[in-house]
Amino acid sequence: MGACDDNDGPADARRSLDVLVEALLASYRSDARGHRINKQHIPSRDQIIEIVELLLQVFYPGYFGRQDLTDENLSYHVGELLSTLRQKLAIEVARCLCFAAENGGAPTVGKETTSCELADRIVADLPRIRALLIDDIQAAFDGDPAASSLDEVILAYPGLLAVTIHRVAHELHRLGVPLMPRIMSEWAHAQTGADIHPGARIGRSFFIDHATGVVIGETSAIGTRVKLYQGVTLGALSHPRDAQGRVIRNAKRHPTVEDGVTIYANATVLGGETVVGEGTLVGGSVFIAKSTPPRSRVAMKPPELHVKEDAPAVDFEI
Amino acid sequence: MGACDDNDGPADARRSLDVLVEALLASYRSDARGHRINKQHIPSRDQIIEIVELLLQVFYPGYFGRQDLTDENLSYHVGELLSTLRQKLAIEVARCLCFAAENGGAPTVGKETTSCELADRIVADLPRIRALLIDDIQAAFDGDPAASSLDEVILAYPGLLAVTIHRVAHELHRLGVPLMPRIMSEWAHAQTGADIHPGARIGRSFFIDHATGVVIGETSAIGTRVKLYQGVTLGALSHPRDAQGRVIRNAKRHPTVEDGVTIYANATVLGGETVVGEGTLVGGSVFIAKSTPPRSRVAMKPPELHVKEDAPAVDFEI
Amino acid sequence: MGACDDNDGPADARRSLDVLVEALLASYRSDARGHRINKQHIPSRDQIIEIVELLLQVFYPGYFGRQDLTDENLSYHVGELLSTLRQKLAIEVARCLCFAAENGGAPTVGKETTSCELADRIVADLPRIRALLIDDIQAAFDGDPAASSLDEVILAYPGLLAVTIHRVAHELHRLGVPLMPRIMSEWAHAQTGADIHPGARIGRSFFIDHATGVVIGETSAIGTRVKLYQGVTLGALSHPRDAQGRVIRNAKRHPTVEDGVTIYANATVLGGETVVGEGTLVGGSVFIAKSTPPRSRVAMKPPELHVKEDAPAVDFEI
Repeated sequence: MGACDDNDGPADARRSLDVLVEALLASYRSDARGHRINKQHIPSRDQIIEIVELLLQVFYPGYFGRQDLTDENLSYHVGELLSTLRQKLAIEVARCLCFAAENGGAPTVGKETTSCELADRIVADLPRIRALLIDDIQAAFDGDPAASSLDEVILAYPGLLAVTIHRVAHELHRLGVPLMPRIMSEWAHAQTGADIHPGARIGRSFFIDHATGVVIGETSAIGTRVKLYQGVTLGALSHPRDAQGRVIRNAKRHPTVEDGVTIYANATVLGGETVVGEGTLVGGSVFIAKSTPPRSRVAMKPPELHVKEDAPAVDFEI
Repeated sequence: MGACDDNDGPADARRSLDVLVEALLASYRSDARGHRINKQHIPSRDQIIEIVELLLQVFYPGYFGRQDLTDENLSYHVGELLSTLRQKLAIEVARCLCFAAENGGAPTVGKETTSCELADRIVADLPRIRALLIDDIQAAFDGDPAASSLDEVILAYPGLLAVTIHRVAHELHRLGVPLMPRIMSEWAHAQTGADIHPGARIGRSFFIDHATGVVIGETSAIGTRVKLYQGVTLGALSHPRDAQGRVIRNAKRHPTVEDGVTIYANATVLGGETVVGEGTLVGGSVFIAKSTPPRSRVAMKPPELHVKEDAPAVDFEI
Repeated sequence: MGACDDNDGPADARRSLDVLVEALLASYRSDARGHRINKQHIPSRDQIIEIVELLLQVFYPGYFGRQDLTDENLSYHVGELLSTLRQKLAIEVARCLCFAAENGGAPTVGKETTSCELADRIVADLPRIRALLIDDIQAAFDGDPAASSLDEVILAYPGLLAVTIHRVAHELHRLGVPLMPRIMSEWAHAQTGADIHPGARIGRSFFIDHATGVVIGETSAIGTRVKLYQGVTLGALSHPRDAQGRVIRNAKRHPTVEDGVTIYANATVLGGETVVGEGTLVGGSVFIAKSTPPRSRVAMKPPELHVKEDAPAVDFEI
């Protein structure tokens, strides 16, 4: 089965393979896009995902990675973890910087800053980030009646995983490391269904319940004690274009969400000028593209429903 | 590249690492939340996922795991499978119980019940659960014109995977096993995009088409022959809080969906009092927080649309 | 812990295991559905996923798989890649064909066509498919102000991954290969949140932003330069049933989307007769089940909102 060479002899098979190979090589030669041939530097997605997994062990020791941690072995464990993490970070940060440079991108970090310094800055920042995450865990537990313990939040809440990765990716983005933050955030998106752009600014005690379908755009600004449910979009209005008709890559395109706001399932908030005022509750499936006053309650006037009784199913259209 | 120790000598590098380690240790010491240090018991997420994969082999032999099953080798294969499954279940159930006890949680199962007895109960229950799953497979095939065979449903329908895991997780939840059911349901959520809380009660012949974005809350009650499409939420209204302002963790918060109901894409049904009457069809994007009569057809009055012809794109806002 | 045999002696444990095994065997014997026992042929999901990963290396060399590609080693690398891919494809295509035949399905490819010929046709088609994908990459970059480079699109855009898999799965579907296309598209769905049926016809320069929750039905027809956002459904109205009350598995059930259309987040377009006219912009959360004229702008009349200021949170219902 599948011993295809026997069809018409290995020689013919080899020849036909040569033809297929040549066609593909022509496809690579014909266009510089879509391949990395004769280039030296590319970040390793696998290594970046390993970095993410090491970060989870650093933030939540005993929940992720080694489970038998005690006061005796802890410092050795953490020392080994951090030294590995620092090395991997430095290597991948270097690859991302060289990759961008090789592609002729404008330098995103000062020439004098080495990848090792950047890696050290990230590692030195982990305790501060971890303090934020502890508040996020508590916010999830306090905000969800179905949560039975903080442990459950750490082990089984996709919203916490998404925010954990975001808080690191945002730091890398802020430091000007190219590509790595987006690869991290996309990994989190695939795991959790929540797509948070590394550029988004998010305050303390943030909670996303259920997570699937949440999209938080690059220039969103979110205050403290904000709670989002599944399917919430913080998005842009249609993109302004330049004279050449290309989309303009700058300016605030996504909403500002002030402290203490809750946005229920599948609500959509659009526009860089839009400010959801402090303490506002935005109801499920609400669609808004303008600002709301502080402490307001925004609910959709329930759309009029047609309720037909005992109609045959075949009559029914969705 | 990344040989950071060479920057300023290994000694300095070592010293700087010590500083980073110390800062992190301080972060662990300062707060009991977010780590499991000097604790003995924690469930292994990896082991629980292995259990899930063994369950798929038990429910759908030949589709998952070993493929050369015959009447001769079947009983040996199943015997080995079940003995492995039973051992792993007993170990992880014990870990979950000890974990909860160590955290001072109220005992969720009778003191006299051993983890081995709980594991045996689950394993003994698998044939009953499997019979439900066969009905679920048939319901998916009967309900989707795009399904070309039962095999396709078993191998490629995320809704079936989500329901398969749910039916086991619900049993574990019912038996009072902490954490494991949520870790299982969250694994299924990550695979399928459907977030079904282990507490939800779901009748026979259940089908979720496309699955992504479906959320079924903890206290939902779903009858037989119910069909949901992507993005359907069976959710809670805003949570009542106690005198201390903490959410109250009890009482029915999610809807009841009676026999033979179909709920189309992205519809939202909210509230513990809400009953979707037997045989009702709920249209796409409908938003309801009150009960519907049996055999009714609930469709959204299509929201008035602005249709502008030949307007320049730049004028357009989403 | 978990040494369950010690409870009541290994002999008893063995006996109790025998009972559990027998109950499960009875479950398999009682119903032909849900197992593949005494059957010879089943496609290997793992092998099909390996094929998908090889395809990514073929389409985007240097981004996926080996990273040190140069003009010297390229042809050897590609030759090895294609010969492996061709073998694996031929084997799995054969398995899928035999599997369907064993299940008594009507033959989906001409008797004379061998699995090797089918594999060769797919491989020979890869350069054409790759050219389409380059346009998709460019469309994503041009359509998203947050995209900083084509590299970012290739490495971190779920929409591109979903379309990449779709363009191959659609070819396999067109050639009549059973099961494999759906297993591929479901793998992509799990990775990206976008559920594109292999049957859907999609033109050049297609872009799905954020991807999560997008559903594109089997008989959808999509033109060139179309852009979709997260949560967009191209779906069916309620399914017509035959005299026996079984859904009819044919006819166009899903919309036609003409060239240059943009459909914003969470919009729903339903029905096989529905044609979204060339150049139309469909606004976020719009719900339509009838055709729109060319170059029109379809926006939802923003649903009337209740805005209550300074209302206590407890009063608020989602």
